Amino acid sequence: MQTDRLGSFSKQYKTLVEERMREIVSQLEAPEILKESMLYSLEAGGKRIRPLLLFATLKAFGRAPEAGKDVAAAIEMVHTYSLIHDDLPSMDDDDLRRGKPTNHKVYGEATAILAGDALLTLSFNLLSQIPADIADANVKLTLVNMLSNAAGAEGMVGGQVSDMEGEGKNLSLEELEYIHINKTGRMLVYSVLAGAEIANADAETKTKLSKFAHHIGLAFQIRDDILDLEGTVDQIGKPVGSDTENEKSTYPSLLSLSGAKQELDRHIRAAKQALSSTGLDSILLNEITDLIGLRTS
Amino acid sequence: MQTDRLGSFSKQYKTLVEERMREIVSQLEAPEILKESMLYSLEAGGKRIRPLLLFATLKAFGRAPEAGKDVAAAIEMVHTYSLIHDDLPSMDDDDLRRGKPTNHKVYGEATAILAGDALLTLSFNLLSQIPADIADANVKLTLVNMLSNAAGAEGMVGGQVSDMEGEGKNLSLEELEYIHINKTGRMLVYSVLAGAEIANADAETKTKLSKFAHHIGLAFQIRDDILDLEGTVDQIGKPVGSDTENEKSTYPSLLSLSGAKQELDRHIRAAKQALSSTGLDSILLNEITDLIGLRTS
Repeated sequence: MQTDRLGSFSKQYKTLVEERMREIVSQLEAPEILKESMLYSLEAGGKRIRPLLLFATLKAFGRAPEAGKDVAAAIEMVHTYSLIHDDLPSMDDDDLRRGKPTNHKVYGEATAILAGDALLTLSFNLLSQIPADIADANVKLTLVNMLSNAAGAEGMVGGQVSDMEGEGKNLSLEELEYIHINKTGRMLVYSVLAGAEIANADAETKTKLSKFAHHIGLAFQIRDDILDLEGTVDQIGKPVGSDTENEKSTYPSLLSLSGAKQELDRHIRAAKQALSSTGLDSILLNEITDLIGLRTS
Repeated sequence: MQTDRLGSFSKQYKTLVEERMREIVSQLEAPEILKESMLYSLEAGGKRIRPLLLFATLKAFGRAPEAGKDVAAAIEMVHTYSLIHDDLPSMDDDDLRRGKPTNHKVYGEATAILAGDALLTLSFNLLSQIPADIADANVKLTLVNMLSNAAGAEGMVGGQVSDMEGEGKNLSLEELEYIHINKTGRMLVYSVLAGAEIANADAETKTKLSKFAHHIGLAFQIRDDILDLEGTVDQIGKPVGSDTENEKSTYPSLLSLSGAKQELDRHIRAAKQALSSTGLDSILLNEITDLIGLRTS
């Protein structure tokens, strides 16, 4: 499905953010076991969809994607911390993540919790130190403010709490959307808006991009739910059907499988429409949207 | 021991920071159980020594202590998050904190972990939103940068990992100091330097204040170790002798009780000397130093 254009862009900038994260963590003056645990999860692979959204947004504004490397590293660190904490025995109790043992299975719960804490803290450190030729003090502060909103109690953490509260309950579609908009959506929206912020986008364009990212966020989650039913262990790196087993409300459980697929299509179309309305050079963002709609892992 | 001057200052500004924290968390648009869990630990009391250091530093520069209320709230949130995570079963496994059940005993481990995560994230949000008449964009960014350094892998979290690694081992005095300088010291130093930053202190004064805070940080920890041996349950809010039971290296175990007391005095003297060298109006900071040296809880 992935085009050559997106494939080579993706490869280039995945490498950029992965090398940047390794460089930053390796240079920390901190206990070796902590750095090792942080790197273990940062290097566990994955699609790096959030960094790619940021890089592709910069590209859409005609800016060099490289300008986003520190913000991309910060975003991926926040995402990684959230996975480490979500996998803990008291949360989802997952032993595997992308086919590898989860952080706490390798380093123990205490170190895993602290590695997550350190990654979250480090993300703000990175934003505070973006070189001045990329972002001035006001842009950096906005990036800090937006990240803390997207990742905190009113965003990702709040979504995770609602997700836990919803387990074993029959949620309405509205409740399910609230969870996903916060748990996964806010960080996807941040990835796009952080690019727009660095590119000094106007308010109207930001609103349109925010709408675009909102829809791909929901599409991403619906696809995830569908994969949990239709994917293979190899594709999704965890047991198939684990949502059903954990009594989680999902889009297919609320809308039926075909209803969920229709809803997925609807969000993909809405995302593309919002994107197109910006008038930006959005080829790559469009292709990422297709990838989210059709991804198999 | 506490003078009337410090007593009334302390009472006034404890109330200020406590009300500010309650106001901020109450206004969050987040799941009620998350807000409740965050507030439970924020309101568990304590001396609020870090906020008081910040307020007293502002006072020493002739600035209104009120100017520090958001930074004070941010500092206390970081401190509180660290206590919630430290108390978890996989870490210190404490059931009581200041005589009350710990966060995870009341809300469960998952919510406790997430409340900690949310408090840490919120602290950066607060710093990013300090009113412009108190701090300009550059000062706010410096406060974000310094906090992320003090609280992260190279600071508090790193110290906590070293502390865990050191359990059951015979540490050298140097190793013990490394742990405490990071685990508790860095956030105490931050509290003082954040005040200096808001007051636009010059580099030389900041260096002197940093030295001052370094010594009170170590004094604070030595006093903690002594209290663990000599205090009562009522005074310290946890079982007496728990360090010995947990096979932790402490100042008394390395230096003997009287040696630890001498070391405490030495740090108190060094702190006062550094403070006096700043030429600031440091009556309150001096009294806080005495309080740290002689505190009974």
